[in-house]
Amino acid sequence: MAIAEICLFPLGTGSPSVGEYLKPVIEVIENSGLRYELCPMGTVVEGPIDEILSLVRKCYDAILASGVGRVVISLKIDERTDKKLTIESKVKF
Amino acid sequence: MAIAEICLFPLGTGSPSVGEYLKPVIEVIENSGLRYELCPMGTVVEGPIDEILSLVRKCYDAILASGVGRVVISLKIDERTDKKLTIESKVKF
Amino acid sequence: MAIAEICLFPLGTGSPSVGEYLKPVIEVIENSGLRYELCPMGTVVEGPIDEILSLVRKCYDAILASGVGRVVISLKIDERTDKKLTIESKVKF
Amino acid sequence: MAIAEICLFPLGTGSPSVGEYLKPVIEVIENSGLRYELCPMGTVVEGPIDEILSLVRKCYDAILASGVGRVVISLKIDERTDKKLTIESKVKF
Repeated sequence: MAIAEICLFPLGTGSPSVGEYLKPVIEVIENSGLRYELCPMGTVVEGPIDEILSLVRKCYDAILASGVGRVVISLKIDERTDKKLTIESKVKF
Repeated sequence: MAIAEICLFPLGTGSPSVGEYLKPVIEVIENSGLRYELCPMGTVVEGPIDEILSLVRKCYDAILASGVGRVVISLKIDERTDKKLTIESKVKF
Repeated sequence: MAIAEICLFPLGTGSPSVGEYLKPVIEVIENSGLRYELCPMGTVVEGPIDEILSLVRKCYDAILASGVGRVVISLKIDERTDKKLTIESKVKF
Repeated sequence: MAIAEICLFPLGTGSPSVGEYLKPVIEVIENSGLRYELCPMGTVVEGPIDEILSLVRKCYDAILASGVGRVVISLKIDERTDKKLTIESKVKF
């Protein structure tokens, strides 16, 4: 079970406010069935690697369908083999 | 007022569990006086760019002082000139 | 055609030198058939989004097979719809 | 001596082509006196942590002065204490 953070930066939109392009992406994440948490600098999801990568593909489709001419997707994946990672375990120190 | 996410990855520690090296970093952030939020893939802070970069410097010092032989610091900064960003405004869509 | 940068950080390895864990990943990228460039902070590849995500999956497999107990994968993808991005076009200003 | 990769994503520019906003940033890096390499997904610099963070500050100033309404700065820093990192050492496997 990996933890991933997905951030999308729409470029060339004409306004510094890009929420309208991100809304369909959030919907895709909500509908993925994966556990997730909206964070200020990206959305964190928890799941098997294949489902995470498949979700990234759907986010890519969703943002391009929203009309942006360019997007930068930033993804960070954390995986370990000795025990299961969860969203909650990642904020315990 | 910029929003930044700071993540530190300690390398060469001998164990996949790296919380002990991150604890002093969290303390540095807590003591910075900046508004912050612990997120699963990094800590988000809100403040003027100079205070954010100064905090990154202190996190760098803290993790090297904790005994790690190598660290990768990942930082993302979001800044806009037309209105004030806040941690809260970044999760409204 | 998207451009992506793939970086892998092996954690918990016992030594700050992690090249031995990255070698099999480089081989996977070389064998992918995609155009690529080794850069100091990651490897840049050029290709369709599906081939890039499929390559990320293979890099994930390769590094876990190399024996690391934990890995952080950092991925950045740049895509635009109005013209074709290439590795070369990204360093022209 | 740390190695860092600096990437800037100008938002809200009206066109997916953002080179004009990045040109002054490249000049700032060239004039920094630090060793650097232009890579497809960011510029890699080599230097002491304080000079790197000071350079990030100057890039931030340069891009805001170029007229963008919003910017996301992505920074990755690699530092180790047992031996000196160089741009060249980072692409040897």
